[in-house]
Amino acid sequence: MLNDILKQLTARAKKSSRQLINLSTDKKNAALLKMAESLLEQERYILQENAKDVAAGKKSGMVESLIDRLTLNERRIRSMADSLRQIAQLEDPVYQTIEGYLRPNGMYIQKRRVPIGVILIVYEARPNVTSDCVGLCFKSGNAAILRGGSNALNSNRAIFNLLQEACASEGVKEAFFFIDSADKEAVDILVRDCASNIDLVIPRGGQSLIEKIVSISRVPVIKHYKGVCHIYVDKELPDREQALSICLNAKVQRPAVCNAMETLLVHEQIAGDFLPRFKKAADAHAVELRGCARTRQILKGVKAAAEDDWYAEYLDLILAVRVVDSVEQAIEHINTYGSGHTESILSSNTFTIEKFLKEVDSACVFSNISTRFSDGYEFGLGAEIGISTDKLHARGPMGLRDLTTYKYIVTGNGQIRE
Amino acid sequence: MLNDILKQLTARAKKSSRQLINLSTDKKNAALLKMAESLLEQERYILQENAKDVAAGKKSGMVESLIDRLTLNERRIRSMADSLRQIAQLEDPVYQTIEGYLRPNGMYIQKRRVPIGVILIVYEARPNVTSDCVGLCFKSGNAAILRGGSNALNSNRAIFNLLQEACASEGVKEAFFFIDSADKEAVDILVRDCASNIDLVIPRGGQSLIEKIVSISRVPVIKHYKGVCHIYVDKELPDREQALSICLNAKVQRPAVCNAMETLLVHEQIAGDFLPRFKKAADAHAVELRGCARTRQILKGVKAAAEDDWYAEYLDLILAVRVVDSVEQAIEHINTYGSGHTESILSSNTFTIEKFLKEVDSACVFSNISTRFSDGYEFGLGAEIGISTDKLHARGPMGLRDLTTYKYIVTGNGQIRE
Repeated sequence: MLNDILKQLTARAKKSSRQLINLSTDKKNAALLKMAESLLEQERYILQENAKDVAAGKKSGMVESLIDRLTLNERRIRSMADSLRQIAQLEDPVYQTIEGYLRPNGMYIQKRRVPIGVILIVYEARPNVTSDCVGLCFKSGNAAILRGGSNALNSNRAIFNLLQEACASEGVKEAFFFIDSADKEAVDILVRDCASNIDLVIPRGGQSLIEKIVSISRVPVIKHYKGVCHIYVDKELPDREQALSICLNAKVQRPAVCNAMETLLVHEQIAGDFLPRFKKAADAHAVELRGCARTRQILKGVKAAAEDDWYAEYLDLILAVRVVDSVEQAIEHINTYGSGHTESILSSNTFTIEKFLKEVDSACVFSNISTRFSDGYEFGLGAEIGISTDKLHARGPMGLRDLTTYKYIVTGNGQIRE
Repeated sequence: MLNDILKQLTARAKKSSRQLINLSTDKKNAALLKMAESLLEQERYILQENAKDVAAGKKSGMVESLIDRLTLNERRIRSMADSLRQIAQLEDPVYQTIEGYLRPNGMYIQKRRVPIGVILIVYEARPNVTSDCVGLCFKSGNAAILRGGSNALNSNRAIFNLLQEACASEGVKEAFFFIDSADKEAVDILVRDCASNIDLVIPRGGQSLIEKIVSISRVPVIKHYKGVCHIYVDKELPDREQALSICLNAKVQRPAVCNAMETLLVHEQIAGDFLPRFKKAADAHAVELRGCARTRQILKGVKAAAEDDWYAEYLDLILAVRVVDSVEQAIEHINTYGSGHTESILSSNTFTIEKFLKEVDSACVFSNISTRFSDGYEFGLGAEIGISTDKLHARGPMGLRDLTTYKYIVTGNGQIRE
């Protein structure tokens, strides 16, 4: 039954996705602005539906941090509308030419960006993901299918319906789809049995959700795993104060996000000087340090880091600290324990920097800046659908372009192959 | 047991892959030329090992076409060596800058190509795939793991060992790996249990092999499915003789390959004139036609096409023929029955062509040329690892660049995030 419903819905999505390439940029932008307007106008309705989810969540004993993610207010709705308006201002990637060249036999080859097709977004309790993902997929010409957490079903449905009505009022129908079911099995059915109608699944949620989808999906998955970000402080430091300020910024400016530093690696020749200074600054922000044996010789009283700490994404004011022998050991540590997200080296030696940037196998590798810059806006991509820790198709911050694929268009005048 | 062996082997591959980015282009090219030389020098040894596989295949009743694919001879070994030499001449994509730009805060962002990491190639009875894939993965800085068909184990092992020795003699060790086991379970273990050490799997083989891998793999897969290629002959034809020659070329020049035409779609207003002429030309090449009802009204005596014929990749001198009402119906037919490989429109009307090129959802869309041009060499990419019918990461002919991913390298001088 659910199986049939989902097969029909994904078939409709596939069919409609084929027409979206014909929508002009003007039309898409007008619809995005209308969607933003509608969210603001219908704020009371959204809050009323959201209150149902929040009440049910509290009743069922949902943890405080999840209640917080679930809860909408005026400010959050305004921010959802702002995102849609920003997406309207971004460059439209659809049908852009990536390359164009003439072949010796006179054929002209163009490699042009086209929408991927149907994108399934699986997410958890944040209702703002509904409008963000609709906006990004719509602008890039993809048919989005949204499957939000069952705890946020009323909120997501309300937001989705408003977006859809706004879009329809601009003459665009069936551009995005909503799985209006709390049935846990829906995701399995979608990624396993409806694979021929879905081109990509992007899970936005915790590791267990992502791993479950990867293990059953026949649809390609782009994963946004955790960010175990490192800073390596080299022995040849350009400026000690600068290094302190970068490390502090990476840890404390917003500790709960994926591009915050989780492990600090310090060269042994500078650790004796650098670590006490860093501890003093970190103490002022109540950062808990967990150190290796050598760290604890320098910083007496610091808690010992266990093996698990090197893998940890704390998302909190906690930091693992290790003293290393060399840049080689720092690279080895990162490639062993890291999550391939973002790492930064602080050094003045161009050869050391080059080695680090080349050999660290992560989406984003930085020199002499904070890891916190790993972000679509900071990179100038505009809004992002996430930060891919995968290597295939898209790596690092994923903007509108990363929601497209390409086709080869070859035009000729009678060429045949000899 | 096999599980442990494969986990250790893939862990070694992962480790070695991290060093391959440091190999200079000169070093890689020298090793490729040495590999080519070694295959030619050791031709007798390869033929002797291959003869064992061929004898076993014949004894076990292997079908003639498979025996043919399995069998090596002097010419085929020379062609393997030539491929390696050609790969040495191709541009090295590793560490090329895709984009570089300055941000307002002074950070400089570079998006640069890097190897994907560890690539598993699963293939069937063709021993030449061993050297082609080693060459392409090696030049693009990836650690290849090769898993060939058990029927070709002696041949593949011989080729692999020669390539590895040649590479080692140039000082490069552990750059590619061979699964020296006929155990059918090896592939399952690799893509399911060794996923953390493998970045990509490319199955090169029939549909059942590909589907099996997709259903169990936790590693991203790039599929090279079948090519059900179409030509649509529009009512506004530039030149009837040219159209005939293109259609004939696409069908008969090499019918057993994936970019040969399998279905011909003809606009109703021109079918009465075009189809009899085409049949005459096709008859001269003994092409069997299978037509829709309208086709059979024009071409008396032609066999009726069944529903299955529209999905068929004949790889033979057989062609499905359908008369359509419009370019819209042609597009709809292709998007319904096609495999997303390659399609061509023959027309002189720029609006009709534009519509076809835009709305047909295939990797390669052509106008007024033969589908046979869908090929890495013809596109100027050099050697190809295959033609992707997927949309993620790589679509259409996959050359060296498509065997790379990218990383964001951001350099600064003390930037922190406010």
